[in-house]
Amino acid sequence: MKAFMEPKSVALIGVSRKSGPGSFNIMENMMQYGYKGRIFPVNPKAREILGTKVYPTIRSVREEVDLAVISTPRENALSILEDCAASKVKAAIIVNQGYADADDKGKEIQQGILEVARRGGMRVLGPNTLGVLNNFNGFTTSFMPIGKERSPVGLICQSGILFVGAMEFSGAIGKGIDIGNACDIGFYDALRYLGEDPDIKIIAIHMEGLNQAREFASLAARVVKEKPIIILKTGSSERGAASAMTHSGTMAGNYHVYRAALQKTGVTFLEEDGKMFYAVKTLGSLPPMKGGKVAVITFSGAAGIMISDALERHGLSLSSLTANTIRSTAELSPEWMPLGNPLDIWPAVMKHGAAKAYSVALRAVMNDPNVDGVICVAIAPEMPAFSFLDVSGAINEAMEEAPQKPVVAWLYGPNPLEMRKHFESAKRIMTYPTLELASWSLSILRDRHKVLGMKKSEMR
Amino acid sequence: MKAFMEPKSVALIGVSRKSGPGSFNIMENMMQYGYKGRIFPVNPKAREILGTKVYPTIRSVREEVDLAVISTPRENALSILEDCAASKVKAAIIVNQGYADADDKGKEIQQGILEVARRGGMRVLGPNTLGVLNNFNGFTTSFMPIGKERSPVGLICQSGILFVGAMEFSGAIGKGIDIGNACDIGFYDALRYLGEDPDIKIIAIHMEGLNQAREFASLAARVVKEKPIIILKTGSSERGAASAMTHSGTMAGNYHVYRAALQKTGVTFLEEDGKMFYAVKTLGSLPPMKGGKVAVITFSGAAGIMISDALERHGLSLSSLTANTIRSTAELSPEWMPLGNPLDIWPAVMKHGAAKAYSVALRAVMNDPNVDGVICVAIAPEMPAFSFLDVSGAINEAMEEAPQKPVVAWLYGPNPLEMRKHFESAKRIMTYPTLELASWSLSILRDRHKVLGMKKSEMR
Repeated sequence: MKAFMEPKSVALIGVSRKSGPGSFNIMENMMQYGYKGRIFPVNPKAREILGTKVYPTIRSVREEVDLAVISTPRENALSILEDCAASKVKAAIIVNQGYADADDKGKEIQQGILEVARRGGMRVLGPNTLGVLNNFNGFTTSFMPIGKERSPVGLICQSGILFVGAMEFSGAIGKGIDIGNACDIGFYDALRYLGEDPDIKIIAIHMEGLNQAREFASLAARVVKEKPIIILKTGSSERGAASAMTHSGTMAGNYHVYRAALQKTGVTFLEEDGKMFYAVKTLGSLPPMKGGKVAVITFSGAAGIMISDALERHGLSLSSLTANTIRSTAELSPEWMPLGNPLDIWPAVMKHGAAKAYSVALRAVMNDPNVDGVICVAIAPEMPAFSFLDVSGAINEAMEEAPQKPVVAWLYGPNPLEMRKHFESAKRIMTYPTLELASWSLSILRDRHKVLGMKKSEMR
Repeated sequence: MKAFMEPKSVALIGVSRKSGPGSFNIMENMMQYGYKGRIFPVNPKAREILGTKVYPTIRSVREEVDLAVISTPRENALSILEDCAASKVKAAIIVNQGYADADDKGKEIQQGILEVARRGGMRVLGPNTLGVLNNFNGFTTSFMPIGKERSPVGLICQSGILFVGAMEFSGAIGKGIDIGNACDIGFYDALRYLGEDPDIKIIAIHMEGLNQAREFASLAARVVKEKPIIILKTGSSERGAASAMTHSGTMAGNYHVYRAALQKTGVTFLEEDGKMFYAVKTLGSLPPMKGGKVAVITFSGAAGIMISDALERHGLSLSSLTANTIRSTAELSPEWMPLGNPLDIWPAVMKHGAAKAYSVALRAVMNDPNVDGVICVAIAPEMPAFSFLDVSGAINEAMEEAPQKPVVAWLYGPNPLEMRKHFESAKRIMTYPTLELASWSLSILRDRHKVLGMKKSEMR
């Protein structure tokens, strides 16, 4: 994978003469991205592209080439790859569609690609891929613009839209590998690379089909002890599996068998889109949860009830708070107020102000030995008019001396974006758009703690 | 309910002398809100509040009072209510907590409230409520600020946070009733009022406990033929049900029995928080879906697979597109491109541009007799740099002559807020943050069509 992720020189075969918005010029994107190595554009119809000398074929490049990025119609793929092999290119990315994702002819060409690569000692990524992204050395082969953050999140996917749109899918990624049709480099190779990479602390995977399933599972069980791995496996439906055949040309396989096998390795397994972002945010920022007992601090009794329901759906339960914890909030509340878990602090807020009430309650539950994790329901008020309802300062202060337990929050009100930033500023508390997601996030932290405590023999 | 929703005069008993941010002054909020009727503040310790003469007791108000809003500690509730009855007040809202939601003493007082009200021919809303909201005459009894839109959405709830935060819970509401502990006015009365109200076209309900269950179900089955009713029933877990007792003091009852009975009436029944907003948006804006066959138009094969999976989870399936529909997109696509449903138009986009490809595909599926509804996957590009990927104009134009079928969209990319507005501008297409929600939204439109076609005898 090193030739793909950290090439010293790159040949761009079939690079377009057009540049600017809408031209999707891979060379332009690579240069704007800050690649420091040498670029050799190859195009028999051009002499110069973006101020750089163009070569008619890869054979005419007389210097060492680590990586060839091939963006030509499939008809030329085999002969170009033969040329790459002859020129001792170490690795090739085949960008275009029209292979095993398309028709019988495409399948045949893809098979040929693999044979040429094996003979020439070359590794191939794709076809049907945007290639790679490495924000730690400013390198990408994507022809679409892509985020530049040095995030500890690594992404492996089989889709261009999730690759360039990683910000929405998984949050910012530091390194990414789009394996596309995965004719050679697959999930196994990609996971091995990211698993060993010290820049990467957590790995997000979008999976359609899986080759080398046994080797992958064994590797995942090893890597997951060091780094959380989250997998969204698609193709659970018959039609979805059939579509996977015409999208990445890979076999989705028996979904239920894959799910059981992958879950056993200790990875976080997702069934629905939209959850990867929150899984990464949760596992990447919060500590594992030692048990399944949760305390709820809430401005709203109604929300407390919804959380009780959601916790049960996710296999967690409400802690029995100690008398000490109850007493601390009872001292702030009216005499008639029944207190328990969920800990409804609204009457205390009305009497003593939001910051005071929240701070007292949070310190108490964090130090309660019966509590493994906490869900906070707070208000996201309009600022500055309703700043007296903003508890973000108070809770972050209370967290400074608090034990290592995960705390998640749901913010309700007209100003969630600004308040989320305040809540998450110290990276001790993460926020979620629904109580369902907040409750679920604690369940995956509970699972994470179990995985870290498991012996290797239990995981395979 | 008329005395609550359209009072000509209101007495505010126990109104505070403090005003401004943080004082939660109910009178100040009512005046800022634009109430046109007469307000009689009642407070034995003040002579003037916000420039208005204050009465020492309700008995000293010698004019007709439609509605009394009582915000005093529970110790005084019964004697004040007796005074209201003596003064021929028609309706009373009891704002404070501390009744059946609290302890035995509170339960006893609440029972007394009901007895006084019955004897005096007075209706009571609460205790433990923010009261009502009517944006069609500028009236609210909430002591917290609240939206002012004349929306056709009516809300019934048992929680102040969902009442003042309706914008996040259900989207903007035009009328709202917080029934709180529901000692007298309950879901039945509130639904009857909103069901008959010509300003209200759709009804959102947050339900903890339900009294008069049989009458409510019978009424709901009748109203739902005219207006969609969406119910989030909380308290599915044992602990959640127990919390409902200490929140609104109402019995959550056997959740599974309630669910079965309510679903039979044809209402849209929700299990998780976060869905009410999308249910209202969907049922309030899109036509019912005649069958369960869905066409998918997508920029991304990966998203098409996820939709196939999600449709199956929600009891829907992919249409078999007619040869004509396939041909229309095939003409824009490379020869090798396998086309079906999901209809992957990315290669057509690369050849002919996004607007052309989307427009052709959408017209074709909308006119396909095998298609009951459509899911669109599109990009939310940065503007204006990537405006060539914006298909919002093209799809809204294509929708102008299209048959009445629901179309939902998922937008992927860095600019979802702006693009959502463009997509939804003609109110023919609604957008969702996940494919799961987009697929689910079609399933509730399918259910809605079934309900409208059902005979009344099938619904009870």
